[in-house]
Amino acid sequence: MKFYDLSGADNKRFSPFGWRVRMSLAHLDIEEHTEVELVKFSQKDKLKFSGQELVPVIQDKSTIISDSWRIAEYLERNYTNQPTLFSSPTDKANEKFVSSWVDSQIHPLVAKCVVRDILDVIDPNDREYFRRSREARFGMSLEEIVTNRGETRSLLKRTLFPVRKVLELNPFLGGTSASFADYSVFGAMMWARITSSFDILEEHDPITDWRERMLDLYDGLARKETARG
Amino acid sequence: MKFYDLSGADNKRFSPFGWRVRMSLAHLDIEEHTEVELVKFSQKDKLKFSGQELVPVIQDKSTIISDSWRIAEYLERNYTNQPTLFSSPTDKANEKFVSSWVDSQIHPLVAKCVVRDILDVIDPNDREYFRRSREARFGMSLEEIVTNRGETRSLLKRTLFPVRKVLELNPFLGGTSASFADYSVFGAMMWARITSSFDILEEHDPITDWRERMLDLYDGLARKETARG
Repeated sequence: MKFYDLSGADNKRFSPFGWRVRMSLAHLDIEEHTEVELVKFSQKDKLKFSGQELVPVIQDKSTIISDSWRIAEYLERNYTNQPTLFSSPTDKANEKFVSSWVDSQIHPLVAKCVVRDILDVIDPNDREYFRRSREARFGMSLEEIVTNRGETRSLLKRTLFPVRKVLELNPFLGGTSASFADYSVFGAMMWARITSSFDILEEHDPITDWRERMLDLYDGLARKETARG
Repeated sequence: MKFYDLSGADNKRFSPFGWRVRMSLAHLDIEEHTEVELVKFSQKDKLKFSGQELVPVIQDKSTIISDSWRIAEYLERNYTNQPTLFSSPTDKANEKFVSSWVDSQIHPLVAKCVVRDILDVIDPNDREYFRRSREARFGMSLEEIVTNRGETRSLLKRTLFPVRKVLELNPFLGGTSASFADYSVFGAMMWARITSSFDILEEHDPITDWRERMLDLYDGLARKETARG
C-alpha cells in the first residue's frame, strides 16, 4: 500500500489530514506495510492518478482513495476483522461529527495561529505559491493573519470546550482508548507542532495532558517527528 | 419515577435539556412510567430536595439525579438490559462530545434568536425575573439581543456544519436510528419551536428534513406539543 502525504522542507510532514491517516495506520498496526510517498506543494502532479490534487491519498493495488475520512473507512473495512476505528455504526456517525467539527471550527483557528510559520518549513520553491494562495484566501498578508494570535488562541480554547468535557470523563475522546475522533483533533495539534513554536494551547489547559498521551501512542510515533521548538 | 421539567404559561415545556430527557425516556420506552412535575421559574423551591435549582431532575424512589447527561446515564444503566442510548463506551464518549458542543456552541446562538420571544410564553409572574437575569447575562435588553437574528441564524448555519456532514451519510446523528446526540441537537430545536415563530433554520437547509424525522419519532411525541406558529 502506498500512502501519499504532504511534505515541507527536510521531509517535514505536517498535514493535519495526513496525521489522521498516519495515526489510523498505526492504530490498525499496518503502518509497516505502507510505503510513504512525500508530495510537496509544487509536486501535485504526483497525485494526478487520483483524479484530484489533495493529500492524503492511499493506493492499494488498483484501489485509489483520497480524503482522510474515506481512507479511514477503507482501512477499517479491509484491514480488520472487527471494528476498531469505529466501534459501532452509531459511533462511526459520531466520529464523522467530530472530524467535520475539526475541519470547520478548529482548523481555521489553528491556521490563524501558524500560517505564517508554515512558510518557513516548506520547500523554498513552494513559498511563493503558498503565500499567494493563503493571502488570497484570508484577504490579508500572512503576517497580518497571525498578528493577534493570542486572541485567536483564546477563541480556540473556548471552541475546544467539548473536548475538555469528554476528557473530564475519559483519557481519550474515544473513551478508554484513542479513536478517529482523537486522531482528528490531534492532527490539528501536530500541524501546529511541526510548523510553529507557538503553542496553540494555553498553559494549564487540561487538553495538554491528553496531547502528551497522544504523543506517546504507538511507541511515540508522533513525538519522534521533530517539533519546531 | 418523577420527572421535573421546566414550564411556561399553559404548561408549555420548552427546556432544551428537558427535551433531551423526554426523548430519552421515549427512546427507552419508559415515558409512561414517569410522572411529570412542571416547575416554573418562580417555583424553584420545588427542586430544593435535589440540592440545586436547575431542571431537569429525576427522582426514582430514593435516587435523585439532576443534569440531563447524568439522567441519561442513569436511565441507560437502570432501565435497559443492553446499551441503547449509547451503543459502546467509545460512542458514549462521542455522544458526550456532541451534547457538550450543543451546550457551548449551539445554545448561545439559539438564545440570541429567541430569548425575547420566551418572555411571551412564560408565566406572567416569571417575566420580571426572566428579563432581569437574561439582560444581565447578555449585557443588553432582550430586544437588542434579537435585533440581528438573521445574522445570528447565518452563524448558526455555519456552526451546524458537522451536523449537516453526518446527515449526508445517515438519516440520524446516531446513524440509522436516533441517539442522545440527536436528542441534544433536537432539544435546541424544540426550545425555539415552542417559544418562537422565528425559524432558526434557513429554508432548504437539509437539517430541516432531519428535524421533521425527529418530530415524527415516538408517535409524533414532539410534534404534538403546540409550536408557536
